[in-house]
Amino acid sequence: MRIGQGFDAHRFASHDAGKPLWLACLLWDGDGIEGDSDGDVAAHALIDALLSAASLGDIGMLFGVGADSAGAGAHGDEMLRKTVDHLHDHGMRPVSASVVVIANRPKIGRRREEARQALSRAVGCDVSLTATTTDGMGFTGDGQGIAAIANALVEPII
Amino acid sequence: MRIGQGFDAHRFASHDAGKPLWLACLLWDGDGIEGDSDGDVAAHALIDALLSAASLGDIGMLFGVGADSAGAGAHGDEMLRKTVDHLHDHGMRPVSASVVVIANRPKIGRRREEARQALSRAVGCDVSLTATTTDGMGFTGDGQGIAAIANALVEPII
Amino acid sequence: MRIGQGFDAHRFASHDAGKPLWLACLLWDGDGIEGDSDGDVAAHALIDALLSAASLGDIGMLFGVGADSAGAGAHGDEMLRKTVDHLHDHGMRPVSASVVVIANRPKIGRRREEARQALSRAVGCDVSLTATTTDGMGFTGDGQGIAAIANALVEPII
Repeated sequence: MRIGQGFDAHRFASHDAGKPLWLACLLWDGDGIEGDSDGDVAAHALIDALLSAASLGDIGMLFGVGADSAGAGAHGDEMLRKTVDHLHDHGMRPVSASVVVIANRPKIGRRREEARQALSRAVGCDVSLTATTTDGMGFTGDGQGIAAIANALVEPII
Repeated sequence: MRIGQGFDAHRFASHDAGKPLWLACLLWDGDGIEGDSDGDVAAHALIDALLSAASLGDIGMLFGVGADSAGAGAHGDEMLRKTVDHLHDHGMRPVSASVVVIANRPKIGRRREEARQALSRAVGCDVSLTATTTDGMGFTGDGQGIAAIANALVEPII
Repeated sequence: MRIGQGFDAHRFASHDAGKPLWLACLLWDGDGIEGDSDGDVAAHALIDALLSAASLGDIGMLFGVGADSAGAGAHGDEMLRKTVDHLHDHGMRPVSASVVVIANRPKIGRRREEARQALSRAVGCDVSLTATTTDGMGFTGDGQGIAAIANALVEPII
């Protein structure tokens, strides 16, 4: 059994940028997120937790970095599935994973089950999703952006 | 074996608010903490780590949110015990858990063993407690508040 | 199997301070880091994750705090090895560990494999290293300092 840690943060885009807000593989109302991919911090933190648990580098190695990368424009759902395929190719599979979203918005509560199912389908094991704020403190508390912390367990496929 | 991640942050209350400072199930000298419950970020981060490891939602689902919620006025100790009861009701038990407190104060060191024992008794397994600062940076470094990051392993009760 | 969480953050030192930049057991070009030891946040977060997984306190208990402590001037590599010796003395060994570095610089990418190997040699099991930024937000985003989040699994030596 091996363990991985992941973290990601993205800045909210201005309204004018016209970017949609993707989080935990769902599309949400409200201002969008900066990022070369869809800016889904929950998915990205999970991807790094899974890759690091499997000792397979990180999201930048697998998908590239920047507007011309393989990950540019990609959705969290698709990136999570490719990550799990990559684990399988190296004889590993996800056992359990969990992600905390730290943000003032969107409010996860009413769509938590939908998000949990979307993440779990993409990863192929139970993925838990919790959400919290920072009482108005720091860069998530003042509404600049969203952060996510994830962990994961993986094991060899026997 | 399943893994969970938790995070929480609360703002120090002003002296005038007269709130006590609860952390890691202990009462500390000094300014209190904002929050509908007792504002114990170590307990709350652990609760989210345990609930997410068991795929049982988060602290808001179990205790409600706001001044009228079931968790209003509740202590971390009591909330941790209810969380573990909730896991048991769903056939799961905690195996191991760990929490990092990020804050300038209180200084955990001299009461770490007392806090570790209080957390471990409430959860029913070894819970580790470490504490660190951020060299004066960010919202914990400038003394606005306290943050905590936790992780946990749970397993089915056979 | 037991789990631990670790976190650390250090401030960049001014050029005049003449301090070197140690991170993940490697020496990097550029401004150095404040700290009584070598300021290696990746090593320190891992040490706290390992010690908390083994319920053996934290880095301050093992190495002391301040310029006169046992850890003063020590390198992350040496501190990690002493941490693992301490686990062995208590009948525990590391199984797997992972650390995320959150910083604008140094750019980990081109030396990731070298850093991963240095960390893994010091700990005696696979240690994964990922790196990310916060899109210019918070105390790592504005270049004040570096943070690291780590987790670890340990088990009894049978």
